[in-house]
Parts: sequence; C-alpha cells; structure tokens
Amino acid sequence: MAYTGLQLRSLITPEGKLKLSLEEVETPDPGPDEVIVRIDAAPINPSDLALLFGPADMRTAEPGGTPERPVVTADVPEKLLGMVAGRTGESMAVGNEGAGVVVQAGSSDAAQALLGKLVAVAGGEMFSQYRCVNVFMAMPMGDEVSAREAASSFVNPMTALGMVETMRDENFNALVHTAAASNLGQMLNRICLADGIDLVNIVRKEEQATLLREIGAAHVVNSSSDSFAGDLTDAIHNTGAYLAFDATGGGRLVNTILTCMEQSATRGMAYNRYGSDTLKKAYVYGRLDLSPMELTAAYGFAFSVSGWLLTPFLQRIGLERMATLQQRIAREIKTTFASHYSDEVSLAEALSPAAMLAYGQRQTGQKYLINPHG
Amino acid sequence: MAYTGLQLRSLITPEGKLKLSLEEVETPDPGPDEVIVRIDAAPINPSDLALLFGPADMRTAEPGGTPERPVVTADVPEKLLGMVAGRTGESMAVGNEGAGVVVQAGSSDAAQALLGKLVAVAGGEMFSQYRCVNVFMAMPMGDEVSAREAASSFVNPMTALGMVETMRDENFNALVHTAAASNLGQMLNRICLADGIDLVNIVRKEEQATLLREIGAAHVVNSSSDSFAGDLTDAIHNTGAYLAFDATGGGRLVNTILTCMEQSATRGMAYNRYGSDTLKKAYVYGRLDLSPMELTAAYGFAFSVSGWLLTPFLQRIGLERMATLQQRIAREIKTTFASHYSDEVSLAEALSPAAMLAYGQRQTGQKYLINPHG
Repeated sequence: MAYTGLQLRSLITPEGKLKLSLEEVETPDPGPDEVIVRIDAAPINPSDLALLFGPADMRTAEPGGTPERPVVTADVPEKLLGMVAGRTGESMAVGNEGAGVVVQAGSSDAAQALLGKLVAVAGGEMFSQYRCVNVFMAMPMGDEVSAREAASSFVNPMTALGMVETMRDENFNALVHTAAASNLGQMLNRICLADGIDLVNIVRKEEQATLLREIGAAHVVNSSSDSFAGDLTDAIHNTGAYLAFDATGGGRLVNTILTCMEQSATRGMAYNRYGSDTLKKAYVYGRLDLSPMELTAAYGFAFSVSGWLLTPFLQRIGLERMATLQQRIAREIKTTFASHYSDEVSLAEALSPAAMLAYGQRQTGQKYLINPHG
Repeated sequence: MAYTGLQLRSLITPEGKLKLSLEEVETPDPGPDEVIVRIDAAPINPSDLALLFGPADMRTAEPGGTPERPVVTADVPEKLLGMVAGRTGESMAVGNEGAGVVVQAGSSDAAQALLGKLVAVAGGEMFSQYRCVNVFMAMPMGDEVSAREAASSFVNPMTALGMVETMRDENFNALVHTAAASNLGQMLNRICLADGIDLVNIVRKEEQATLLREIGAAHVVNSSSDSFAGDLTDAIHNTGAYLAFDATGGGRLVNTILTCMEQSATRGMAYNRYGSDTLKKAYVYGRLDLSPMELTAAYGFAFSVSGWLLTPFLQRIGLERMATLQQRIAREIKTTFASHYSDEVSLAEALSPAAMLAYGQRQTGQKYLINPHG
C-alpha cells in the first residue's frame, strides 16, 4: 500500500510570483533501506525560510484558496529574480527536520527494526504528512519521548554541538554567541555548562539576559546597553573567547566583537603596528540582519570572518563523529536539547495570514511547530 | 672600532605630536654571529608607513630643523592617540629592509664569511647608515648585483611568493590580485608566468592594464570599467581563481570579488538556497582604502575574509621552506624580483615636504629608495 498525504510547496513563477500551497502527494514504496515516516511534528526553523519564501517581499503576501487548501501569493522583486533562477518554475517541498512514527519499512533488517518506532528525521521535505527516508536519516528515539519533543533533534542541536566541536578543532577555548537567547542559544548554554566551556552571550534585551542567567549563563552582555563595548571586552578578557558564532551577518555587530577581542588581546601589551598576534575569528551562520556587514581596520590583520553552515561541518567531521553527536542528542533530547515553541499549527494554519506576518517580520520570538495531521 | 651614523626616527609624544627626525647613533661591537652592514639602499614600502607616521594626519605636516637635520612635526588626532599608547614617548627606528656591504663581522665563521660582501637585510631599523644584524637576517647576493638592485629582496618578493605558497597550501589553483600594477603585483605576475599559475589582475586605470599586459599578464580587468563585474566573473570562470589577495581592505572591492566568484561558481548550476559549495576566499594584506569594508549576503556561506601578513606566514612555513624561497629571490633578483623606484633620496630628503606630501596622499605610484649615505 502507498500513503497519500499533503505536502507544503513553494513555487516561484517566471513572472515573479511566490506561490505557497498544499499539494497531495503519494509516497513511493520504500526501497530495502528506506522507511515511510508519518510526520507528527516539524518545526519551522529560520533556516527553512530561505527556501520557503525565496527573496519574496512577504509584506505583499495575499491569502487565497480554501481554509483546508490555502494558497498564499507574494511578489518577488524583479531585480532579485536572478538570484533564484535555478529554482524558478519548480514546485519545491520544504522542511529541514521533523519526527514521527515509522508506518512502513523496506526489506532490510535496519529498516524493519524501525517499524512502529518514533524517529527523528532530517533531509528536507518534512512539512509533509508522510515522508520516505533512508534509515540513515532516521534516528530512533527513546520510548518515553514524544514526537513534539523529538521534532527539533537535528538542526539546532547539531548546530550548537557543531559550534563547540569547531571551537575544539580550531584550538579555541571559549565562545562568543550572538542572538544568544534563541532556542539554539539556550541549547548552547546548556552544552557549555555541561562541558565546562566559557560562553559569552550577546543579547539585545534585558529580559533575554534574565532568561539566560536563569538557566545558568555566567557571561551575558546586552548590545543595547551604553556599556556594551566595555562589558563585552571584559567578558572576552575574563574568558579568552576569541571565536564568535554570529547569527546576524549584517551591520556592525561582528565588527564590534572583533574590536573588543582586539582590545582584550592588547590589554597591557606592547605596541604592535599590525595589531595583536591573537587570532580573532567570527563565523557567520545566519542573516537576521540583511544590511551589509561592515568591517573596519580596528583589529589589525589577525582576523577572520567566514560563513559557517551545518552540512559542510558534518561532511568534515565524518560519519563516526556525527553518530556520536546524534547519540548524545537522543539521550538528552528532554534536557540539553529541549526546544520551545510559541505556537502549534496544522499545515493549513502554517499558511495563515498570522503566520505569514510573523515570518515576514522575522519575529524571532515566534517559533512554529507544524503538526501535519493536526 | 664602532661605526657612528644617522638613523631616521619616529616619535609620538603624549601631547599628540608626531616628530620625525635624524639621530646620530653608534653601532655596537658585533657579537660572534652578528655583522655591521653599511646600508646603501633601503626602500620605503607601504608597510613602513604605519610605523613611520602612526595615525598622524600628514596634511598637518610642518617642516623644521636644518637641511642636513630636518625635523617634521604633524598632529595626531586625539581620538586616535589610544591606538598608539604602546609606543607613545618612544623614539622608534624605521625601515623593514635594505641592502649594503658588511663592513665589520663577529668572530664566527658565518659572520667572517660575509665580510666585504653585499647582503640584503631585513628586521627593521634599516633607514640607518649602519645596522648591526644577525647573520641569519643577512642574505648574501651575487657579485654582479648592486645594493640598489638588492634593496627590496625581502618584503615584496616574500609577500608575492607567500601568496603563491598559500594558494598551493590551501589547494586553490589560481589567484585574484588587487592593486595589481604595483611593484608587488608585477612580481606576482612574473612568478605566476614562470610557474604556470593563472592570475587575475585587478587594476583601476587603463594604463596599468597596458603595463601588465606588456609584461605578459593574460587576465587583466579594470575596476573603473562599466563592464568590470562581468569581466571579472568571466576571468574567474576561465581560470578557477577562488582565492583573492587584496591590498585595499576597505570599501566594496572584496565584496565584488566574492560576488563574481559566486556568479562564476553557480554558472549553469542548480539552485542552492545557501549559495554555492565552492569556497570563496579573500585575504586582506593591505589597507589602501581606510573606509570600512562592506560585505553583503550575495555569496552564501562558503566564504572567508581574513587578514594576511608576511611574518605569521613565514612562521608557519618554517626555516627550511623560507630558505628555499630566499635562494630563489637571490637567484632571480634582477629579473623576477626586480623593483622600480620613482625617486632616489638621502635620509634628509626622505623627510622633505615633497616626500611628506607623496606619503600623506598615499600616492602609490610614488616609490622612494633611500640611500642613507647619499
């Protein structure tokens, strides 16, 4: 038997329209190493938004269709159409991760062993009622874990662990993190507390600082405070955090971090015309701020600003190290790697005007969990 | 006997004045492994200017003293004084490299072997009539080489070779270079021609493009041209040059290079929401443009912008590889590594109003060679 179910689709037309809709699709018969997962929970992550919306201006979003089969249309500015020439005209399924029960399994022992089990899955197209995946992409979860708890077992947990692993691989000893009160930031705090790593948290609001201190964060600085630069320099000097992971990717925040690193590194040191020898490094892993990033000459030449993405990191560490990280995530999904959602929605509700408004304004406090069968 | 001679000095006072002057200094008796070099030629490199001027505003430079012992004073803006707190009040000798004859030698065989020989030297304080250096920093040159020809045997040649070595170490196959018509850029062209490496030269003026084509450059693009972005993308696509060395360090040039690299990498490829997987890398090794560097989100996350300096590179490659590079430089100093100067000046003339004007405006076409005994 084949399962048929709804799937969220994103299409950009050659005329410059974004069209979001729900399409009915039939899952294939699973191959020997494949399983069919009934997706019961899938988070909408910031990393899903680029594929979901492309460069469309979501302020122009208009609802359409029926309550059960909503359709959203929005305008893609003409000058940005070139950026997405590679996907234009192709209806694309969305959703980086999710969790659910294996309802059908291929003939291999590995696949059969998962039948009836709750698995966390990754690999795209998860905003679907059913999804056929290779057993390699399905991580079995403990019996006492719910689909809701297992939904975000991959993107945020692996990213947070990836930051710590990258720090270790590159011989840094402590970290700076921006947008630090996010789900990801909270996870990173719990990992660093457990592993004895100093973490400097940068937030924009005092209530975010309070939230992080309540979960045990020792170093929290508020970028809205008048004393931000001094506070950050002190925190870097106290921790030796010369590696930053930045979610904003625009404006002056990375520049301020590198400048404070340099101020910390040169405290009490002799003059060096080329800046300090201490390597000051920032990885950009998100683009919450779409304005250009500005880098000044305030920290010499021992600096590096690079992009960081999860997939190349996982390719670099290889399968064995990745499996070790996955096992930790499965073991600690209710504690270290627990996620929080502001709303639980059906596939249709994910395309509601309220949801469009929240995404379009990139309200980072807003975090949706889709229940495709809700 | 001890040699006494003039030495160019740079002093920043606590009151915020830069003072340039010539001081009489006596060389010490050389230790066993040291030699006294009579400096006959020393270039003023862009990399000397930071120590020479600090953050002083050279538009405020005023001549003083006597024709034989000129003194230049200039204002250091108060808000920039903190940057140079580590050197304030200390009279500093200047000059990264030079060449001359060994007039006195320590007792070791290595030192004695250099007596009467022309050597190229590095290690600072070269704008001096005499300089005591360790034999390790003195590279003997062939008999048919003049001090003038040997004066720039270190900074530019090692930097140009360092770019090529870095390219090889990081598994890139071709290079992009900005400010490509400089002495350094011409050297890099000759190295790349000799070694069969594709080099994309970025210049600002058509006469610079002509100059480079005349010495054999195959890929030259003009950043002042309307077709710059398209020309650069074509050149990168034709050469596979995904590593750039940039001398400007400010404005939008690095951003344009990374954007054109991305355009080249994605030609004919399927859509990837995070940008291409091709690593696009830029090393900043100079600051000809002091405005902030702007990086946009036009090339995904597989990018890196880092500072690059000669000294850490040399530390990384170690003594043996460095010696191999030095031997090549000594062998090819009249050809591959030949330098050109616009003016030859005495120590006193190096502090003339005309020279100050040229430096202060960072006239990159202006390149002085000092003859300290001239």
